[in-house]
Amino acid sequence: MKADSAIVGGRVATTDGVFPATVVITGGQVSALLDPELRPDAEDIVDARGKIVIPGGIDPHVHFNEPGRSDWEGFEAGTRSAAAGGITTVIEMPLNANPPTTDESSFALKWRTVRDKAVIDYALWGGVVTDNVDALEGLERSGAVGYKAFMIDTQTEFTRAEDGVLWEAMQRIAAWGSLLGVHAENNELAARLQHRLQQAGRRDMRAWCEARPPVVELEAIQRVLFLARAAGCRLHIVHLSLPEGADMIAEARRVGARVTVETCPQYLLLDEEQFVRLGPTAKCAPPLRSHSAVEGLWQRVLRGSIDCLSSDHSPCPPEEKLRGADNVWVAWGGITGVQTLLPLIVSEGIHRRGLSLERFVALTSTHAARIFGLYPQKGSLLPGSDADVVILDLDREWTVTESSLLYRHRWSPYLGWKIRGWVDRVMVRGRTVAEDGEVVGAPGYGKLVLRSPRP
Amino acid sequence: MKADSAIVGGRVATTDGVFPATVVITGGQVSALLDPELRPDAEDIVDARGKIVIPGGIDPHVHFNEPGRSDWEGFEAGTRSAAAGGITTVIEMPLNANPPTTDESSFALKWRTVRDKAVIDYALWGGVVTDNVDALEGLERSGAVGYKAFMIDTQTEFTRAEDGVLWEAMQRIAAWGSLLGVHAENNELAARLQHRLQQAGRRDMRAWCEARPPVVELEAIQRVLFLARAAGCRLHIVHLSLPEGADMIAEARRVGARVTVETCPQYLLLDEEQFVRLGPTAKCAPPLRSHSAVEGLWQRVLRGSIDCLSSDHSPCPPEEKLRGADNVWVAWGGITGVQTLLPLIVSEGIHRRGLSLERFVALTSTHAARIFGLYPQKGSLLPGSDADVVILDLDREWTVTESSLLYRHRWSPYLGWKIRGWVDRVMVRGRTVAEDGEVVGAPGYGKLVLRSPRP
Amino acid sequence: MKADSAIVGGRVATTDGVFPATVVITGGQVSALLDPELRPDAEDIVDARGKIVIPGGIDPHVHFNEPGRSDWEGFEAGTRSAAAGGITTVIEMPLNANPPTTDESSFALKWRTVRDKAVIDYALWGGVVTDNVDALEGLERSGAVGYKAFMIDTQTEFTRAEDGVLWEAMQRIAAWGSLLGVHAENNELAARLQHRLQQAGRRDMRAWCEARPPVVELEAIQRVLFLARAAGCRLHIVHLSLPEGADMIAEARRVGARVTVETCPQYLLLDEEQFVRLGPTAKCAPPLRSHSAVEGLWQRVLRGSIDCLSSDHSPCPPEEKLRGADNVWVAWGGITGVQTLLPLIVSEGIHRRGLSLERFVALTSTHAARIFGLYPQKGSLLPGSDADVVILDLDREWTVTESSLLYRHRWSPYLGWKIRGWVDRVMVRGRTVAEDGEVVGAPGYGKLVLRSPRP
Amino acid sequence: MKADSAIVGGRVATTDGVFPATVVITGGQVSALLDPELRPDAEDIVDARGKIVIPGGIDPHVHFNEPGRSDWEGFEAGTRSAAAGGITTVIEMPLNANPPTTDESSFALKWRTVRDKAVIDYALWGGVVTDNVDALEGLERSGAVGYKAFMIDTQTEFTRAEDGVLWEAMQRIAAWGSLLGVHAENNELAARLQHRLQQAGRRDMRAWCEARPPVVELEAIQRVLFLARAAGCRLHIVHLSLPEGADMIAEARRVGARVTVETCPQYLLLDEEQFVRLGPTAKCAPPLRSHSAVEGLWQRVLRGSIDCLSSDHSPCPPEEKLRGADNVWVAWGGITGVQTLLPLIVSEGIHRRGLSLERFVALTSTHAARIFGLYPQKGSLLPGSDADVVILDLDREWTVTESSLLYRHRWSPYLGWKIRGWVDRVMVRGRTVAEDGEVVGAPGYGKLVLRSPRP
Repeated sequence: MKADSAIVGGRVATTDGVFPATVVITGGQVSALLDPELRPDAEDIVDARGKIVIPGGIDPHVHFNEPGRSDWEGFEAGTRSAAAGGITTVIEMPLNANPPTTDESSFALKWRTVRDKAVIDYALWGGVVTDNVDALEGLERSGAVGYKAFMIDTQTEFTRAEDGVLWEAMQRIAAWGSLLGVHAENNELAARLQHRLQQAGRRDMRAWCEARPPVVELEAIQRVLFLARAAGCRLHIVHLSLPEGADMIAEARRVGARVTVETCPQYLLLDEEQFVRLGPTAKCAPPLRSHSAVEGLWQRVLRGSIDCLSSDHSPCPPEEKLRGADNVWVAWGGITGVQTLLPLIVSEGIHRRGLSLERFVALTSTHAARIFGLYPQKGSLLPGSDADVVILDLDREWTVTESSLLYRHRWSPYLGWKIRGWVDRVMVRGRTVAEDGEVVGAPGYGKLVLRSPRP
Repeated sequence: MKADSAIVGGRVATTDGVFPATVVITGGQVSALLDPELRPDAEDIVDARGKIVIPGGIDPHVHFNEPGRSDWEGFEAGTRSAAAGGITTVIEMPLNANPPTTDESSFALKWRTVRDKAVIDYALWGGVVTDNVDALEGLERSGAVGYKAFMIDTQTEFTRAEDGVLWEAMQRIAAWGSLLGVHAENNELAARLQHRLQQAGRRDMRAWCEARPPVVELEAIQRVLFLARAAGCRLHIVHLSLPEGADMIAEARRVGARVTVETCPQYLLLDEEQFVRLGPTAKCAPPLRSHSAVEGLWQRVLRGSIDCLSSDHSPCPPEEKLRGADNVWVAWGGITGVQTLLPLIVSEGIHRRGLSLERFVALTSTHAARIFGLYPQKGSLLPGSDADVVILDLDREWTVTESSLLYRHRWSPYLGWKIRGWVDRVMVRGRTVAEDGEVVGAPGYGKLVLRSPRP
Repeated sequence: MKADSAIVGGRVATTDGVFPATVVITGGQVSALLDPELRPDAEDIVDARGKIVIPGGIDPHVHFNEPGRSDWEGFEAGTRSAAAGGITTVIEMPLNANPPTTDESSFALKWRTVRDKAVIDYALWGGVVTDNVDALEGLERSGAVGYKAFMIDTQTEFTRAEDGVLWEAMQRIAAWGSLLGVHAENNELAARLQHRLQQAGRRDMRAWCEARPPVVELEAIQRVLFLARAAGCRLHIVHLSLPEGADMIAEARRVGARVTVETCPQYLLLDEEQFVRLGPTAKCAPPLRSHSAVEGLWQRVLRGSIDCLSSDHSPCPPEEKLRGADNVWVAWGGITGVQTLLPLIVSEGIHRRGLSLERFVALTSTHAARIFGLYPQKGSLLPGSDADVVILDLDREWTVTESSLLYRHRWSPYLGWKIRGWVDRVMVRGRTVAEDGEVVGAPGYGKLVLRSPRP
Repeated sequence: MKADSAIVGGRVATTDGVFPATVVITGGQVSALLDPELRPDAEDIVDARGKIVIPGGIDPHVHFNEPGRSDWEGFEAGTRSAAAGGITTVIEMPLNANPPTTDESSFALKWRTVRDKAVIDYALWGGVVTDNVDALEGLERSGAVGYKAFMIDTQTEFTRAEDGVLWEAMQRIAAWGSLLGVHAENNELAARLQHRLQQAGRRDMRAWCEARPPVVELEAIQRVLFLARAAGCRLHIVHLSLPEGADMIAEARRVGARVTVETCPQYLLLDEEQFVRLGPTAKCAPPLRSHSAVEGLWQRVLRGSIDCLSSDHSPCPPEEKLRGADNVWVAWGGITGVQTLLPLIVSEGIHRRGLSLERFVALTSTHAARIFGLYPQKGSLLPGSDADVVILDLDREWTVTESSLLYRHRWSPYLGWKIRGWVDRVMVRGRTVAEDGEVVGAPGYGKLVLRSPRP
């Protein structure tokens, strides 16, 4: 039987090692891993000489703003940007859209809205808000891969899950074997601090950081770790910004909590001083931290205390940022990043910090697939897995410019950055969707991925 | 110079040991500790043969309901009950009165209201509520020995201190070297659980326990330990009901938190099953716990993990309890106990559990004096200390009856209990205020005690 | 290019999952992993329908008694037994032979002695004894994959490495990136206890256990963890017998020690009562433990606290056991087990305790390959790895009998045990060496494997 | 009844506070503590105006070399030095004498030898050596207050207690409620390191430190903590030199070990650099440590992690030191210090480091009395306690000179040190034994003190 295609000449990197091999693809799946000496019998031969072949990136935390925010990113621009950056599956968040994905019908509506737009595969988070605990079951039936909750109020249409709601939601989610993803910041602390700063007339960038100092994030992490452990619920801490948080999570794991954690490039590459220089473009929550926190967080990444990386891609029309130039409080809080996630970590992690390729694959693909129940369909290059493949040119250098970005609104805190590491080709289920920076995949090709039943 | 009085023939018990000695009193203070062979030259000789002489009990947690609740306990009945039970100093709480003691003027009003009523000495807590952080300085100037806050809403006139308020209050209190006393229960968890139980039509006693399970108290303890340690503020956890909480506090202390903890006889002597039998009389918050929690808490008392004991004396007119007979939610939550605190612990702690006399004195007097800055004026029998002295007949047995109680409303969960251990005589600043169960002290003799300046 | 062989129809189990795949072998290595739908072009087709295909077992702890103990096991019988049991690589110990492998020349002598005898691959431990610290470098040059030391005296020709020797050896071994394997029992404690028991005339089996109670092993583990962490040396604790030891190791790892640990079937399947019944056959060191220790150790295996399994195969002529029937002190201390290691764990671990196939592969193959620097040559089925493959029939039942054992001396504590799980076929570098219980490999086929250079 | 004497005008310092009081003494005991306003009726009035009155110092670790080393210190010179320095009770060690105190008859011999020589009270340690476990009961009957063991070989007549001996001794000592005092250094590590240094021709002071680096002491502490906790035996770590050791002890205590610890002025005031300058005079074991270890140890003293202070007074004829000037290995290892212990800690602890008077009394008197079962006879100023009293002039300055020392051989590492803090008067059982630097007590006045029966 003739295979559809074969990627030859490259070195395959998985969590288990880096070895020369040919990846053979048939019917959208990996059908063989071959010794490079073996000649594959395939329609198409993809040349990966001098390059690294990895499982496609999985970004477990993006906001694409559909349905309902028609001027914002949208699934088409979002997934095209992702594809260009080496991401083959995104897990999209239930908020920053209208309505938020908090029950069965809003899940269905989102799917109807986006199904013809995605160029890569996608899974969907459900949301936990003030009053929808009884609606979670409908989300579970619909195929949500996890449930996202905010411990802090950020927007009126996606309310904070107070502790009692978290507790109830945890009981349900634990029974299904799913997981709760938590934005951990203490609502009451941050609200009080912000109020005091506003009373004092503060509107500068640094005020944002002062309203959400480390204690705001760390207290919330500690609290939700305690509750999740008591409830026996799997927990995923999103966008961790502080090394102390990683240590608290490691300690909770040691005493029996089932918890995983992600961080984002912004917390590894930018700090509070850069926020002051960049202005609202770099406003996010939790806020950017000190230089020493950045260094500490890298240490946790390198020693294996962080499970996966996400972009927390949170785009907006530029005016949502611009209006905050003189008043940080009114600026949109969120940073774009789905396209730059992988290249930035190649450049700053692998080249500059000595991150191994094995761990890079774990952080950007395999671990997320395992955490969200997509493994081994996603996150693997073993035979039978979806042929989601990225070919990396580790050493090619390029510069981030507006024209290189495919976001609907082409802003980024990384404009002008020189990056060593280029996404050469991206395949989703065996088909090339991006090649040398150009997206060639068609909207609607991307499919909804569901969580595997519990083993 | 002739002394005023001398207590002869007894064995003096302090935190340092138990030894035969004569306590000589002059001018309201201990003027000498004498070898029993030395003949004291004193006006009055008090015979303590066969008895134990200890520093007067300090109950750091009572509610006497003045000003403003004229049908409730009141300082006169409250301090008379305390005197009869061997308490020579109470530290009175800022709530369950109207107005609560949350600023300089309410502190002054309370003092004017009670100054002519107390038969024993008293110190006053200030309160931290939603909006009085800026008023705390007035309380500090007035002489509050500490600041009490609720993490859970219980009454409209003394609002919960949300985390942001706690955080601000901690900064101030730390700067003064004072301490924050916290009722630790998670508001959002308990509110949600209560709501669900009420939705289900539950009104029975056990529903109260189910609305406030261990996780409600433990999460709050963990949270406030975290915040207090981050703020560098001294913390005192009131009425701990769970052994796991003692362990969390011990661990926090080990890593540098400055925290102390009290528990109450109700958590050492009663359990949830007794609550079901006794009904609203035994409703309190945190609620009574399981038998194994009671055993675990005794272990922590015996091994020294608990700093002091309080009664959390929280009386009410009987109708406030009676109306909850069929609906636990509307019953008053609080248990009387200032009169029975010492005898119960003698009986159940010293006789039944092997608690040493040295630790008994630490738990009921010396530690509270140190924690609240009253030492060595209170809590000590060394020369120069106030002659607050209790003479205990360790072996005399008696039964708790309505007629033996001096509370304004003579209810108690301990009615009918046989107790081994009797308060024979109680002296405040050298004057006998209670003798053989009769109060002989005059209202107005008791004085306000202030926190010592920091060393 | 036609492949040499292909294993078709089975489910491949690796540490990453279990999936249907064809394993293609060319030139002694895995050349491809194929989707089962793809038809491999191979000389030989091996049918694995209904079976599990795993990386060959690696037993990191065996004693084959060569050179110098000509009546004992020998490499030929030893590796044939191993092959029959699904082991494709053994790591052989430097003692129970004459001379022990403690310098360059003894290493060379051992290799010359055994090179024509092994039917499977093998690596060699070097030994650390009283006086050979300066000779370790010769062993490193020769290709030792690790260094074994005893903290307790067991035999005159392989002396205990006292703490000062361990400390010096650790400095050297750390510099080479190699690892120290330690038999952890406290020499002085055990010697004293044994002396007292002998003074009291004790010779029964239980006396052996009383001479080496848990404190003897746990103190030594704690000590060597402390020293290894201080020296920055990789450490491997061999034949752990106690769950508390696993917890100490986990804690040491958490605070930065680089330590791994193995246990053996005897500590998971036999206990002290069985030792009393079986007599000297089941004498080993550390001794068999209590029933609750066995249960606790299984928990640590199941939750991932144990890195790998070994047999500690330590055979002897039967008279070495028999003479101890009435005097445990003179019996040989050691248990045979290389042939039964895998089947016993399939039966008792996978079937009875719910051990997953992924973790089974980790425990019996991949982890040992990584720990001893043999990965990915060994312990993997990825293209490029040695085609060391075992085909398991998970459900076939059989009984351990003398005739089923291939040891030179056919004794075992498991005679008569019914086992569910059968080793169907064993391939070393692509060649079948055992099939359905018959060894078909030729002596001398097995090769010495060296530790990979540090990355 | 007229008292024998009264100390008036001073401030009394105990572990409970510092307060103005008169100490009245009758029949050798404290008969009263009086308010300073009360006029005592006493034969003798001792004026302590402007001074501090404390319980007499207890030095739990001295070597006075009797019987058998007639040219060394001796009890008379030793106790006279102690008295001059404010020590009213010493606990004398069983070694550095001939025979060592390791059984009933050597205990009796020591007592006969010294009973007419001591000017202050004394208790005696028994010793645990290789072969005397069965002889310990005779020591217990004789009145040993504790048992000293070496984990490291130092001298042929007092052999190291190997782990098996320690283990057996712990069982016995635990049954009696007594305690084991341990010199914790790892014998095998130190021996190996020393051997290597000697091979390399090293004889300088620093070689001594290199032969006994921190790992040597810390490993031994960890080991004996483990064994003592397993045996349920009270443990006392003598002459701790490292802050990390204090932390290990604190952690062991937290998990249930019953362990106390002492350090000595040499580890708080001298460091390795001073050893290099001073030469053999400052040779001791464990050796002097780094400057940062000194600072760390002070932190543990100040925060309460150290229970008591001792001098480890270990004198010798000067030639024993001198012959090591060019060869550190042959110098006597030990430092004099019983006379300077209290003044040095007043000067360097109270004045320079802010040590409180309460903690000073705990460290130099009360804690040792409690640990060794001498409380409340010793270590207290409560009525009924022995009137062992020291009057300190906190601010008087003086310089350590040969003529100020009363040791038989007048060497000290502190010669030339300026000290702020003077021992004004020393009373033992109500009688003045030293006054203003002059010893006025008579040899033979000092009595043997026994351990109190267990409560």
